[in-house]
Amino acid sequence: MSARDPIELVLSMPEEERRIWLRALAPDDAADLIQGAPHEEHPALLAALDPWPRAEVSALLAYKEDEAGGLMNPRFARLRPEMEIDEAIAYLRRQAGQVETIYYAYVLDTDQRLLGTVSLRDLLSARRDQHVRQLMRRNYQSVLEHERQEAVAKLMSDHRLLAIPVLDKSRVMQGIVTIDDAMQAGRESADEQLQKVGGMEALEGAYLDTTFRKMFRKRAGWLSALFLGEMLTATAIGFYEREITQVVMLAFFIPLIISSGGNSGSQAATLVIRAMALGEVHLLHWWRVLRRELLCGIGLGTALCAIGMTRIVIWHGISGAYGEHFARLALTVGTSLIGVVLFGTLTGSMLPLMLRACRFDPASASAPAVATLVDVTGLVIYFSMAKVFMLGVLR
Amino acid sequence: MSARDPIELVLSMPEEERRIWLRALAPDDAADLIQGAPHEEHPALLAALDPWPRAEVSALLAYKEDEAGGLMNPRFARLRPEMEIDEAIAYLRRQAGQVETIYYAYVLDTDQRLLGTVSLRDLLSARRDQHVRQLMRRNYQSVLEHERQEAVAKLMSDHRLLAIPVLDKSRVMQGIVTIDDAMQAGRESADEQLQKVGGMEALEGAYLDTTFRKMFRKRAGWLSALFLGEMLTATAIGFYEREITQVVMLAFFIPLIISSGGNSGSQAATLVIRAMALGEVHLLHWWRVLRRELLCGIGLGTALCAIGMTRIVIWHGISGAYGEHFARLALTVGTSLIGVVLFGTLTGSMLPLMLRACRFDPASASAPAVATLVDVTGLVIYFSMAKVFMLGVLR
Repeated sequence: MSARDPIELVLSMPEEERRIWLRALAPDDAADLIQGAPHEEHPALLAALDPWPRAEVSALLAYKEDEAGGLMNPRFARLRPEMEIDEAIAYLRRQAGQVETIYYAYVLDTDQRLLGTVSLRDLLSARRDQHVRQLMRRNYQSVLEHERQEAVAKLMSDHRLLAIPVLDKSRVMQGIVTIDDAMQAGRESADEQLQKVGGMEALEGAYLDTTFRKMFRKRAGWLSALFLGEMLTATAIGFYEREITQVVMLAFFIPLIISSGGNSGSQAATLVIRAMALGEVHLLHWWRVLRRELLCGIGLGTALCAIGMTRIVIWHGISGAYGEHFARLALTVGTSLIGVVLFGTLTGSMLPLMLRACRFDPASASAPAVATLVDVTGLVIYFSMAKVFMLGVLR
Repeated sequence: MSARDPIELVLSMPEEERRIWLRALAPDDAADLIQGAPHEEHPALLAALDPWPRAEVSALLAYKEDEAGGLMNPRFARLRPEMEIDEAIAYLRRQAGQVETIYYAYVLDTDQRLLGTVSLRDLLSARRDQHVRQLMRRNYQSVLEHERQEAVAKLMSDHRLLAIPVLDKSRVMQGIVTIDDAMQAGRESADEQLQKVGGMEALEGAYLDTTFRKMFRKRAGWLSALFLGEMLTATAIGFYEREITQVVMLAFFIPLIISSGGNSGSQAATLVIRAMALGEVHLLHWWRVLRRELLCGIGLGTALCAIGMTRIVIWHGISGAYGEHFARLALTVGTSLIGVVLFGTLTGSMLPLMLRACRFDPASASAPAVATLVDVTGLVIYFSMAKVFMLGVLR
């Protein structure tokens, strides 16, 4: 069974074979598979399951793929608090075929609320006269059904958990997320994020195995979109034709100015995308992020301004390249750098938050996308500063 | 104990307390901790351990942090093939306190070579009259000591393993990597990769908790380096002052041309960085990558060339903006785009391979770094094309 499109394979099977396949899957895997199928196929696929798994899978289909509920398996090992150790071990041994893991067991009350967790390892090394109640850990980690998958993966990794219980608001246990599923989800989302930040649609397969046609399509789309956006720069510079004709040196610094905006914006965007993925930054933090990036943008802009002005002054001292107006040029470039870098960091940091607010993926605020957004504004800032500092030179 | 700098805390402790702390750690964790300390402190820290753990930790310190040996724990549950099931379970129960996990056990011959693996779950659901030899899996997954951590994490995730045995060349078992360590390592490296591709030094802590000073330092370094590199564009354009003075329209397309090179380069670099991290692409594949990117670069360049030339022709038709030489301008921009995009994809794809060959981190080939490298060349290509197609107009 190819790892690529298992659902296509299942859809192409004769009914009887499909039934056998679907029944062999754990409910969370069946739900993942069905989620990949076109919506109109869902009822037929669900009908192939037996009544009880069908109910479980239907419940799982109600969750989004990237939240705890979408990752969880509803079949977990249950224990009652009053069980004796040997009884509990024997009970787990009997459940071994039906549940996702018997290494962690969950102690529930009669309302299915989670009282505590106990590991098989603890059971195996406990004294035989103890009860599950005495052994269970009450300060366990858990997640709510709608927790984002990246946050689940981070919590499990930080606390080195092999499985984590998923609870609803009233602490009724819904299922468990096991570390293999969390790790796979975490790896997939990190991979997608990396590619988006690098400025392309995510390639799912291996680089060398992807067909040329597929690779071209994945790259051409974004590249053309960015190109169309960047075309605005030609129009923008066109407006300043007169200024460039009068002071041709202004053209020399165009790439330097706009790339500084793009680079600082891409740094800020990456930081915020990462912080959002790790659950450190939420939409509500926008004000704290803005304040911080405002400071950072002014600081970084001032640093580049200092380097840039020094460079112009020294280079002019050596070669006399910039003629009589070198001081005005240095001021134009220096102040533009502060403006452009500040605008870059603010755009880069706010764009992922805005994308999330509009329910898009924040990682689409890729380095090239931010650069493209910032470039036109960078040009406007630059030529406006030129008009201020070159007053008298520019007519 | 702060998650940030546990080693600083340990170094600041009085000797007796330090000894207690270090002894409480598993050997792989102790090795990680000691690895974070300055080299001259290593002997003192090792001396705080008892002789047997000290030998284990010293052996682990010989491995690099990012390879299987550096992640592994040398304490794993061992079984002999001739053991009966109940005997094996009892033996695992006794080992529970000393080994990293008892959920997976490793069946070794008398030379410590790995014969097979058996899970506690299999043992618990087996018939009592069986022997370990009959139950163990012989087609287990394993890794060599020097396997890269990303490859270990990928293998474990693909096969949904909770632990993987680490073998030396003669299949002698050295230890196990457990999924929590693999996941943590995988998360850390993905995080670092993302930030590097976004163009900054990796921030270890949370975005909102990092001090302004630290954040500024991490960002200013790269940003200034890129700025210094980008300064070459000002010098480069300076060489074409005469051309711009004669045909000022040439300046309009500078950002469009160089950003196309940067964007296509950043796509290619991200793809290759990702493929290398996943172990899909190695140095030896450079020729296959080059051939593929050559094709892709020509294809993408031609696509942008078509869009760019159409835009100039249409815009000229509407506004007459580009005067009598609009056809020459369109040809200059179009051919430059093919050249620049091709150069961008080739640079972007080869840079990560070259960095690896020089033992640097391929992920340092960030979007902004590639863009900076490509920009100067892009300008040279552009103005060279202008000289060809504007022959007679440019004197």
